Amino acid sequence: MPTPIQPKVLPSTPSATNPALMIADLLDSGVRLAGDNPIVYRDQKRLSYREFQTRVHQLAHLLSAQGVKAGDVVAVLDWDSHRYLECFFAIPMIGAVLHTVNVRLAPDQILYTMDHAEDVFVIVHEEFLPLMEPLAEKLPRVQKYLLCQEAPQAVNTPLPLAGEYEALLAQQPTHYPFQRFDENAVATLFYTTGTTGLPKGVYFTHRQLVLHTLTEANMLQMPGIELMNRDKVYMPITPMFHVHAWGVPYTATLMGAKQVYPGRYEPEMLVKLLLTEKVDFSHCVPTLLNMVVGAEAIQSGKISLKGWKVLIGGSALPQGLAQKAWDLGIDTRSAYGMSETCPLLTAAILPPDIDQADFEVQKPWRCKTGIAVPLVDLQIVSESGEPQPHDGVSVGEVRVRAPWLTQAYYKEAERSEELWQDGWLHTGDVATIDERGFVQIRDRIKDVIKTGGEWLSSLELENMISQYPGIAEVAVVGVADSRWGERPVALVVASDPTNPPEAEGIRQHLQQFVDAGKINKWAIPETLLMVNEIPKTSVGKLNKKQIRQELA
Amino acid sequence: MPTPIQPKVLPSTPSATNPALMIADLLDSGVRLAGDNPIVYRDQKRLSYREFQTRVHQLAHLLSAQGVKAGDVVAVLDWDSHRYLECFFAIPMIGAVLHTVNVRLAPDQILYTMDHAEDVFVIVHEEFLPLMEPLAEKLPRVQKYLLCQEAPQAVNTPLPLAGEYEALLAQQPTHYPFQRFDENAVATLFYTTGTTGLPKGVYFTHRQLVLHTLTEANMLQMPGIELMNRDKVYMPITPMFHVHAWGVPYTATLMGAKQVYPGRYEPEMLVKLLLTEKVDFSHCVPTLLNMVVGAEAIQSGKISLKGWKVLIGGSALPQGLAQKAWDLGIDTRSAYGMSETCPLLTAAILPPDIDQADFEVQKPWRCKTGIAVPLVDLQIVSESGEPQPHDGVSVGEVRVRAPWLTQAYYKEAERSEELWQDGWLHTGDVATIDERGFVQIRDRIKDVIKTGGEWLSSLELENMISQYPGIAEVAVVGVADSRWGERPVALVVASDPTNPPEAEGIRQHLQQFVDAGKINKWAIPETLLMVNEIPKTSVGKLNKKQIRQELA
Repeated sequence: MPTPIQPKVLPSTPSATNPALMIADLLDSGVRLAGDNPIVYRDQKRLSYREFQTRVHQLAHLLSAQGVKAGDVVAVLDWDSHRYLECFFAIPMIGAVLHTVNVRLAPDQILYTMDHAEDVFVIVHEEFLPLMEPLAEKLPRVQKYLLCQEAPQAVNTPLPLAGEYEALLAQQPTHYPFQRFDENAVATLFYTTGTTGLPKGVYFTHRQLVLHTLTEANMLQMPGIELMNRDKVYMPITPMFHVHAWGVPYTATLMGAKQVYPGRYEPEMLVKLLLTEKVDFSHCVPTLLNMVVGAEAIQSGKISLKGWKVLIGGSALPQGLAQKAWDLGIDTRSAYGMSETCPLLTAAILPPDIDQADFEVQKPWRCKTGIAVPLVDLQIVSESGEPQPHDGVSVGEVRVRAPWLTQAYYKEAERSEELWQDGWLHTGDVATIDERGFVQIRDRIKDVIKTGGEWLSSLELENMISQYPGIAEVAVVGVADSRWGERPVALVVASDPTNPPEAEGIRQHLQQFVDAGKINKWAIPETLLMVNEIPKTSVGKLNKKQIRQELA
Repeated sequence: MPTPIQPKVLPSTPSATNPALMIADLLDSGVRLAGDNPIVYRDQKRLSYREFQTRVHQLAHLLSAQGVKAGDVVAVLDWDSHRYLECFFAIPMIGAVLHTVNVRLAPDQILYTMDHAEDVFVIVHEEFLPLMEPLAEKLPRVQKYLLCQEAPQAVNTPLPLAGEYEALLAQQPTHYPFQRFDENAVATLFYTTGTTGLPKGVYFTHRQLVLHTLTEANMLQMPGIELMNRDKVYMPITPMFHVHAWGVPYTATLMGAKQVYPGRYEPEMLVKLLLTEKVDFSHCVPTLLNMVVGAEAIQSGKISLKGWKVLIGGSALPQGLAQKAWDLGIDTRSAYGMSETCPLLTAAILPPDIDQADFEVQKPWRCKTGIAVPLVDLQIVSESGEPQPHDGVSVGEVRVRAPWLTQAYYKEAERSEELWQDGWLHTGDVATIDERGFVQIRDRIKDVIKTGGEWLSSLELENMISQYPGIAEVAVVGVADSRWGERPVALVVASDPTNPPEAEGIRQHLQQFVDAGKINKWAIPETLLMVNEIPKTSVGKLNKKQIRQELA
């Protein structure tokens, strides 16, 4: 350890102010930059930024009138909406904590998270009343429920309702005297479902979210990626309960960009909004983009999404998908992060020379995990913790530092220390990094298949298998093997179930990669199972934990 | 006072890190984003970002080897150069304080600032040896001088030299183990010469500079202004000793943009670099732009600066100048800030509708002081401290809060409290603010002419007079008057000294504005003095203090 440095720290003059970083500043910025720009909810509502700001003030009054105080945790169960965006601001701005409930979890998991978070007030969309009602008696801390309706109508529920969101909002004063407070106060809280154990709570402070937003806004405007700015139209297709929709609602607000919230993700509504609102930029998981580009109306050219830009995260962007999208005029690229990291860590910002090259040259770069964005310190380390060389080949775990990483799992001392070791957040991802600082995730550490003393990337094998004709989807996991430690097993979904590909054909296809020196010969799975469906997690990723359990 | 809020603040798990904001992160970002982009010094030196980073590490070693420690103040006397940019990083990154000496001050003022700052190490360009040598004996704290030369040659000086910059740098190891430390540590220090009293020191911390940089980078990339990004070429024409050249060298580095440093500002070299290095973006005071657009070679079309974008600060951008520049294909707009504010406060970011309009519509907007950038809280307040309405008419003082304002004048308790009152930094500028949040500075509070019980803006009157044919420059000040309190007096420089405009003609010209209801009839000066030159401050502004003294 080097001797700590003693730099010059000077006192402030008594009357000086050095303002804490507050989420309120993000909203003020958007209103100044483009106060007339719209915030749109489906085909139902259009607000200007100025009107939106007034509603945030009204929501703050509403919450205060209902007894919500600074430090309280407020749960939201809603699809992506202008209301949700109002909650993104009003709840943290009064010093309370926004708990974005993952409504796709099983009811008992939702119950677990709402109990664990100690929610005292719940904002719930009418669609989730049937879900919420049986849980309510097990959530004695919750004082009141605020109902969100698409249209006013009488409702019969045993829940202690405060009233209806729009009706109560309209009654509130239009100016709330927001204060500044400790920038290290918690603003948001949500739960991540790993593949093991109970959901874990991660939380982010005002300071962390402001720094994340300033950096993400820079990133999204940079040449080499240029996805969004004040004059573009944004619509999320990653739910707002999922890591703040990657923080982009905050970023779009800082910029003053037009925002479109699609409610529940219904294909027809999404396409309608993409077209009528002229959406420029969205983000989603590859599965969703795959659905979009595969849709008949898109493929046939009946509907054109030309000019749409999509940032892909959650899992890797396959080059085949990037190509399919490109052929339709859709611009894609990768970003990387996780619930624990707010989430932004890296983005595929093309270097100047690549940015000027043809799409063929760009394609592999667009699909890489990307370079660390400003303020992110990222290393690839060996099992002993040694930083690996920037050679694009040496494999190791990704560990990071950045001023917006969750500082613990909420009320989970032991798992917090597993996440954080030696002052680095350990992502659990295995990757390489090249001379230019481009990261390429190879696998999850726990999904890496340890066979014959080597690490075999399950993702790499999936990628290779997926290139064989007639394959819609593939998952590879390791299963215990007395001789080799583990052996890979592949689950394959055929594009045409009546004409599935032959296992032997797939193996011969893989033999080419062996011959080319890309994988070892023991990487070829003996077991290739044709299945109708591959288990997925609540956020649409391959559920390898479940696959392993089912195979065991 | 409202009751302070008690939000939820949670502890970090023991192994977690929440990194302090450090200037080092800005450099790392640029190297990742565009490691091959160049940093250019005149026609003498080209470094890639990667090479530049290595040199910053070497400079840190050099300084440490010379005994410079964290907390020490290091003075730099140089023109704009790659070396200066290296000092912008290496000095704060080892925890020392960068004192950017204003080499345009009088020797005794330079002596005062270097003594007051308690400089212990001095990096000095050979051109300033004759200036420095007589001062050295009055600066006993200074241990060593590091000499910067354009070309190696023997030098005869009584100063205790550590050696020559390039020669010593080349001997240093290429990796320095930079640490993180308190983000509230002072990184930079420099002196502002107000119009009264001794120079005052202002200082900025790592945190403040990182936040300023993130915000400025967003601003410069925004639609409605779009001045710079990674793929543009930047050359300052505001010296680096003047409020960090508005912070843009840090911002350009964060982005990885090509940077061009012109050394001493010589018209020929500036034009040569603008053309050969294809500079896209610069910033300067209006006087300098006026010189450029008035130059014979530019006016005749022999040299074209088409496509050049220039951000104007220091004083207002006159519409006539914006028009002249536009006619030559030069894109201008205003920004506002001061030494005490790091400096960025506002910028003329055109609202979406104006941004799509013709230049004629844009022109007045481009010349306004602008809207507050993200994180800046700006108010226009009456003499009693009441915020004025956003009506574009009500006049008051500009007061601000932002996370990058100097927290005091260095070792000046009393003047610090004058600057900061009630938690607001008082700019001393008088302005209006309109419905869209656009600020328009009308005058300095101390230059406002109080006549007949009304506030008369000296700037407004100068603007009106300057529209009369044959006037090259004009300054208006108030002089004491027993009957009216103060009366305006105008100093006028004729475009053609052999054929000066008539005072009576000017007064008739002003009568139109009286007739149009823009000014009161007592705004017309009885005294209009034809002069050869108007006194200027060291940064090229009208020196109204001196004018008032000379008139008194």
